[in-house]
Amino acid sequence: MPSYVAPTQDLQFVLHEVLKVSESAIPGYDELEPDFTLAVIEEAGKIASNVLAPLNFSGDREGCRLENGVVYTPKGFKEAFEQMKDGGWTALDCDPEYGGQGMPYVLATSVGEIFVSANMAFNMYQGLTHGAYSAIHVHGTDAQKQTFLPKMVSCEWTGTMNLTEPHCGTDLGLMRTKAEPQDDGSYAITGQKIFISAGDHDMSKNVIHLVLAKIPGGPEGVKGVSLFIVPKFNVNENGSLGERNGVSVGSIEEKMGIHGNSTCVMNYDSARGFLLGDMHKGMRAMFTMMNEARLGVGLQGYAQAEAAYQNAVIYANDRLQGRAVTGAQNPNGPADPLIVHPDIRRNLMDQKSFVEAARTFVMWGASMIDEGHKLGNKDAEGLVGLLTPVIKGFLTDKGFEMAINAQQVYGGHGYIEEWGMSQFARDARIAMIYEGANGVQALDLVGRKLGTDGGKHVLAFFEIIKNFIKENADHPALKDDFLPQLKQASKDLQAASMYFVENGMKDPNNALAGSYDFMHLFGHTCLGLMWARMAKAAHDAIEGGASDKDFYTTKIATGRYYMARQLPATSLHLARIQTGADTVMALDAGQF
Amino acid sequence: MPSYVAPTQDLQFVLHEVLKVSESAIPGYDELEPDFTLAVIEEAGKIASNVLAPLNFSGDREGCRLENGVVYTPKGFKEAFEQMKDGGWTALDCDPEYGGQGMPYVLATSVGEIFVSANMAFNMYQGLTHGAYSAIHVHGTDAQKQTFLPKMVSCEWTGTMNLTEPHCGTDLGLMRTKAEPQDDGSYAITGQKIFISAGDHDMSKNVIHLVLAKIPGGPEGVKGVSLFIVPKFNVNENGSLGERNGVSVGSIEEKMGIHGNSTCVMNYDSARGFLLGDMHKGMRAMFTMMNEARLGVGLQGYAQAEAAYQNAVIYANDRLQGRAVTGAQNPNGPADPLIVHPDIRRNLMDQKSFVEAARTFVMWGASMIDEGHKLGNKDAEGLVGLLTPVIKGFLTDKGFEMAINAQQVYGGHGYIEEWGMSQFARDARIAMIYEGANGVQALDLVGRKLGTDGGKHVLAFFEIIKNFIKENADHPALKDDFLPQLKQASKDLQAASMYFVENGMKDPNNALAGSYDFMHLFGHTCLGLMWARMAKAAHDAIEGGASDKDFYTTKIATGRYYMARQLPATSLHLARIQTGADTVMALDAGQF
Repeated sequence: MPSYVAPTQDLQFVLHEVLKVSESAIPGYDELEPDFTLAVIEEAGKIASNVLAPLNFSGDREGCRLENGVVYTPKGFKEAFEQMKDGGWTALDCDPEYGGQGMPYVLATSVGEIFVSANMAFNMYQGLTHGAYSAIHVHGTDAQKQTFLPKMVSCEWTGTMNLTEPHCGTDLGLMRTKAEPQDDGSYAITGQKIFISAGDHDMSKNVIHLVLAKIPGGPEGVKGVSLFIVPKFNVNENGSLGERNGVSVGSIEEKMGIHGNSTCVMNYDSARGFLLGDMHKGMRAMFTMMNEARLGVGLQGYAQAEAAYQNAVIYANDRLQGRAVTGAQNPNGPADPLIVHPDIRRNLMDQKSFVEAARTFVMWGASMIDEGHKLGNKDAEGLVGLLTPVIKGFLTDKGFEMAINAQQVYGGHGYIEEWGMSQFARDARIAMIYEGANGVQALDLVGRKLGTDGGKHVLAFFEIIKNFIKENADHPALKDDFLPQLKQASKDLQAASMYFVENGMKDPNNALAGSYDFMHLFGHTCLGLMWARMAKAAHDAIEGGASDKDFYTTKIATGRYYMARQLPATSLHLARIQTGADTVMALDAGQF
Repeated sequence: MPSYVAPTQDLQFVLHEVLKVSESAIPGYDELEPDFTLAVIEEAGKIASNVLAPLNFSGDREGCRLENGVVYTPKGFKEAFEQMKDGGWTALDCDPEYGGQGMPYVLATSVGEIFVSANMAFNMYQGLTHGAYSAIHVHGTDAQKQTFLPKMVSCEWTGTMNLTEPHCGTDLGLMRTKAEPQDDGSYAITGQKIFISAGDHDMSKNVIHLVLAKIPGGPEGVKGVSLFIVPKFNVNENGSLGERNGVSVGSIEEKMGIHGNSTCVMNYDSARGFLLGDMHKGMRAMFTMMNEARLGVGLQGYAQAEAAYQNAVIYANDRLQGRAVTGAQNPNGPADPLIVHPDIRRNLMDQKSFVEAARTFVMWGASMIDEGHKLGNKDAEGLVGLLTPVIKGFLTDKGFEMAINAQQVYGGHGYIEEWGMSQFARDARIAMIYEGANGVQALDLVGRKLGTDGGKHVLAFFEIIKNFIKENADHPALKDDFLPQLKQASKDLQAASMYFVENGMKDPNNALAGSYDFMHLFGHTCLGLMWARMAKAAHDAIEGGASDKDFYTTKIATGRYYMARQLPATSLHLARIQTGADTVMALDAGQF
């Protein structure tokens, strides 16, 4: 069974030496002193290693089950959930007015990585609740907030998001679920929703469903979609639970992975619901939470890669097979450990150099979300909005690829469920699909975000790179092994953007045919920037006489690998983009 | 549930217009007239679509089970296996002396693709039998051949290959299974073997295990390994079945995929075995079949991608979601089909352009195996030996990647087992691992095959490309869209080879750190060559007034896509290779 240990030192490095959070002017960041974050991370790490990680494997094997309309989570989940609630882990960045701890999102994200690495399926119960909490927090009436938020902050009640229907996912304008206005101001919701994560389960007393539906007579398409609060049990005036609402679980989906999470078909039959936010503005209400939700999925991508990587390293050090080509490294043993072989190293370095930069990228994104929320900084909001599809699309693609890499280290044992490496790959796979499939992320990036505010945010991104290179032009750790590579990547990204401007006008297919490559080009450039920043911080720490020199030299060496071996992918993506739409759109639909 | 239709026209195109098999001087190829191969392929296609494909999905859901020492295959497998036997499909390329039909391997490979696409797990029962048949055919005594081959050709008895033990896979020198010589000339085999595909089941009367084991007192390591025939039921002098041998199934492995195949832990307890081939030369005996076995796994890679692709195309045409950016294509419907979207096309074109070239590559490889076997052509043998790790490693990596791509087209439905797309990905995953994990293929390619016979075979490969480019320099279909790209790829491959020559001497890690990239660089170059050949054949067919012009123009357009969008990956692989071992080997084992 796989193990997991929280990457405490790495998280602290990102928070305090790269992002320098406690020096930031963002309200609340002054509390994020190293000792404090260390204590939080270590505590989360203990629960992750001792409680959540062991349930990850058993949860996958056992799965959830539906019996007589009741959903049961795998053995041990309920007790673990109680422990999460009791420890206040569900309330970390929630509003203190409703029982939250009011911590910055960047800290909740650090903790989130740990929990997601340890048990992704389990953490989704809380994750979905947090999403629903945010929607009600932003769009709810005072009464709605008072009724629902305190219980959702504590996860006494959990939440869900109901968007997809059997015939419509991305294109929500096709939605059929209806919300009929009732005399008392409520709505009767009728329809079927599918793929509802944490749709129902036995770990909370109530489930608060947020449901997109159409009020008859409203505008056509997505402009006629509204958002509703539909509790599993109706809530009485005094906050106590009333009778069961008209919502039931049709079935639990059999999925490739995340078996520990109950992905439900939900049937609404004149269920009593309450409008959340403005009528017909349901899509806008959903979009409010989108950056956070998508950043959370990007985090799932690298967090699964991290967990898989940790186990691959253990296996590569333990498993004896063959001899190093340069001479035996374990001469007294029957063979050398796998880790002596250059191709195993290539594989592990791909994983390590990805995960560490992805972590920094997501934490940087989280700090910009804080900056937007707490300082009202529109530039930070715009930049993180631009980077969100990159975080979601690129990090989940690569996260899955790296989980596959980690599985490969195990050879045949990687394919056997008993070793747990298959699960990391199967679980990571969903992150490329949900919360907007990665092709949709690429479309969002190229079709929408690039041009937002007249292209201001992508220009700001280029400026960040340019300034970093300028400021550090003579930096001994950066000038040869980081800056030229970063400059080239940035040049490739600019050339691709320019290609879209010049050719997308003539034919938008010229831009969209290159959108996926652009998302990856952008992602690599971001990770290159993260590595340059990390290398600088690591070098500065060594210069400052840091005691754990080994940690920092490893950091620089890992960064060098990424810059030399991974970042050059930008030129391939650019070359593909510059071929335009001709070969992509050449066939008729019938010729495929 | 997914469907499958054999790509008859594509296979015929490869056999007759690209490879021109019936014009070849290889003995037996004169029989491969278009009408004949068409009849065979169509008949195989019927069984595949009507019998095997429907059992693929149910076989995955049901899996195999072990009850009281007996292994049961999924419902319907037994009847389907009878049908395969009755139709003579198990004997296609087997020796007529033992009841085979003596057809060329290239024809068996064409049929193999069809059966593997339809049901990979099912086809492995016959595939393993064929491997064991080949080993006995080459290395067995006359008596052994007479005893075992006729029943294995008909699959009345099936076969297995027993190499792996819990602590040793690639490094077979660590093997512990013992073979104690007995007075009657037989051996008593004792030990445990794992990951034994088709290890036991209810579809045949006997299972003939080929088992690697060490005779006590023999040389250390792999040089002391011998190969043994160990029947499940002892065989009497008259060929009838005697009592049960000392071999039993310990358990069936729970795997990520290929659930329809019984992957067994096999326990040998003084089982009666017979030496096959020379004492201590077991590895050599295994290697005899290696090219075929690895080519067969490479075939599994693209065959799964083919099956997944077919379904992705159906879904992309059926599923209505969003509108084409250039204007509605299905104005009377609620939305346009997915296939209008450029990024869906990019995804499908990646799949299509890979599968079609991979098919041609494998068939070319199969024809060289025939050339080696039937004409004793050492150059063909050497070239296919060089290309074998590329076929196995590159085609299974890409095949899996494309199965993931196909799954992605389905969005959320791709993650639900009910749709069957997860199975293609899970089944394809094993092909990257077994029969030598792909990292081992890369090692074999760079560490062994490149330098075989003084590098003669890689030079021959470059010569093939050079001559093709020279001969077709003015070809109207090739000169702009195929030849310059192929030339560049070949140049990259030569530069990488040269890098290894120049830097591998100083430090072999410089070569091995780039071995995986080299395997992919080589693979892309091969597929580029295949596309150039196919485009030429397609153009010639159009010029010759072929009736189905649409087929050939589609072929050329698909090739253009590959040359423009995929082949440029060679320069990235070269760039990585040229960074050498420094960044790959920079960390100590403890720093990961």
